[in-house]
Amino acid sequence: MEKKVALKDVAQHIGVSVALVSYVLNGKEKEARVGADMANKIRKAAAELNYQPNLIAKSLKMGKTKTIGLIVADISNPFFSTIARIVEDEAKKHGYVVIFGSSDESAEKQLDLIDVFSTRLVDAFIIAPASGTEKQIETIVKRGIPVVLMDRFFPGLKVDCVHINNFNAAGKAVKQLIKNNRKRIGMVAYDTMQSHMQDRKQGYKAALKENSIRFKKQWLVEASYQNIEKDVAAKLKALLKPLQVDALFFATNSLAVAGLKEINKLGIKVPDDLAIISFDESDAFDFFYSPVTYVSQSLVDIGKEAVKLILNRLHNKSKKNADVIVEARLIVRESCGSKL
Amino acid sequence: MEKKVALKDVAQHIGVSVALVSYVLNGKEKEARVGADMANKIRKAAAELNYQPNLIAKSLKMGKTKTIGLIVADISNPFFSTIARIVEDEAKKHGYVVIFGSSDESAEKQLDLIDVFSTRLVDAFIIAPASGTEKQIETIVKRGIPVVLMDRFFPGLKVDCVHINNFNAAGKAVKQLIKNNRKRIGMVAYDTMQSHMQDRKQGYKAALKENSIRFKKQWLVEASYQNIEKDVAAKLKALLKPLQVDALFFATNSLAVAGLKEINKLGIKVPDDLAIISFDESDAFDFFYSPVTYVSQSLVDIGKEAVKLILNRLHNKSKKNADVIVEARLIVRESCGSKL
Repeated sequence: MEKKVALKDVAQHIGVSVALVSYVLNGKEKEARVGADMANKIRKAAAELNYQPNLIAKSLKMGKTKTIGLIVADISNPFFSTIARIVEDEAKKHGYVVIFGSSDESAEKQLDLIDVFSTRLVDAFIIAPASGTEKQIETIVKRGIPVVLMDRFFPGLKVDCVHINNFNAAGKAVKQLIKNNRKRIGMVAYDTMQSHMQDRKQGYKAALKENSIRFKKQWLVEASYQNIEKDVAAKLKALLKPLQVDALFFATNSLAVAGLKEINKLGIKVPDDLAIISFDESDAFDFFYSPVTYVSQSLVDIGKEAVKLILNRLHNKSKKNADVIVEARLIVRESCGSKL
Repeated sequence: MEKKVALKDVAQHIGVSVALVSYVLNGKEKEARVGADMANKIRKAAAELNYQPNLIAKSLKMGKTKTIGLIVADISNPFFSTIARIVEDEAKKHGYVVIFGSSDESAEKQLDLIDVFSTRLVDAFIIAPASGTEKQIETIVKRGIPVVLMDRFFPGLKVDCVHINNFNAAGKAVKQLIKNNRKRIGMVAYDTMQSHMQDRKQGYKAALKENSIRFKKQWLVEASYQNIEKDVAAKLKALLKPLQVDALFFATNSLAVAGLKEINKLGIKVPDDLAIISFDESDAFDFFYSPVTYVSQSLVDIGKEAVKLILNRLHNKSKKNADVIVEARLIVRESCGSKL
């Protein structure tokens, strides 16, 4: 094992003082009036010896680690891994690295991650908060650590957030189904109080009402995040055998993928027997025999805006809390029964 | 903004010495003979005041950051995000957090990530190495930082690695196609010298030879990672219009998803006109009208074994280099033309 190369080693290698090396490698050669030749010589020696600055020691002095803690529901879900990739790229442009963690929508796991990341002095958090974690976010804010919520938020909590208008997006999807002559429209959602899910359910109900369709309780199928496959299969079977709806609106891509498997199993034909619209994207939607219509959230915008808000906070540029609404579009394809 | 709570604040709050508080909060109350009552009082005060230990300061003293740097080709690719999730869970069990980065299969980007992670003193690396980065890995090893390669490796380089037997897995897939009476079998791969891709190509050619099928140069379609959609579309069109093969073996899920889109566009029927087998999984494979046969790598095993190897190194338990071969199974479904 080679010993880690220190400033001292670089200094000894060319016979100059440690202070001189430190000035040059920290970009302060002008202040210290080090000549260009000497500066180049020092840099060359540092590269040859494979000198690596110790950012941790620097962090302690400056109180900054240049690290962002990213907490999502599940990094293996394409929705979050795509956002993670964008956050990574944006953070890197500004010299930050990203630590990530998955909460599995559990308040306890989320708290655990916040604690672990805090002990590592992350400079800021980007969080898709689990249900009932308002106090956790409040505590981060009180500690003065910049935090941005994404995908979900807590009404009344003063914190930066970035998300789509879920009420409107859901309404748009349901109205498309109504336009295509569907009158008994069901919805498959998660049984959670999170803002994004509540807004999607309210948007669904409001669109029905606006079109004089009376919502029936049994049309709303709710699955638990921890038990998605089983819940969706059992509850959809009850709704679809016999067929009590002529359209289904899925609140997420995971719910839709689980639902489409059950729909195939039951031999129900999309869109003739049952029109389909989902939230979010999935490779599965492109390859389903009737390509699936979906609400496309701009993940690029969510990731970019989240990092932008964090940087504004870190540089003390913003005082008021920002509530950034990102675009969502309905991508209309065969599954919703439209004539294309 | 609240001030960060220090050991001193906890000590002042209950009127004891900083040393006493430090002993208790570092779990050394027995060594210091602090009574249980006092220890509880100190812990309670720390919790009330929301004291957070500064792990960064601790890291500097101990030379450990309890951080693993994970470098993959692209965190938004489900193959890597699923492994990332498993690495995260396994690392967490042992008190480690994970920093991640995406190399986009570029040696330059990978070096950049290694440098950035090194300045943050990660304790270890898990890397799916980009092509031509043998020297980069060698440098990490020379610095005495534990590193595990996954998915790919460099023959001759003494470093721990975990991967499947790509030669055998590819052979198995191709033999399945031959068993199903296919005689003109093409392959879609990346144009890279990486071990996993070379082994898959060699396994494909060896299986043809073993069955007295003479490989034709035009059967091997090679796409650039940086230009996958365009390359696959153009080159597959040349091979499939007119149809010069009766089966295709895709070397990764991304290649297959791009390829299936082109196959649909050309109106080719799977498996009647063209049998299909791919590497890796994808939701798309389940929803393609002819469910796709695939080589399933155990991502759970890859993630778990990688962390296990890292921990062994960190605890100096291993001296010899480990080469862990993880299981891969062929999941046979309609697309390969089998009678099911």
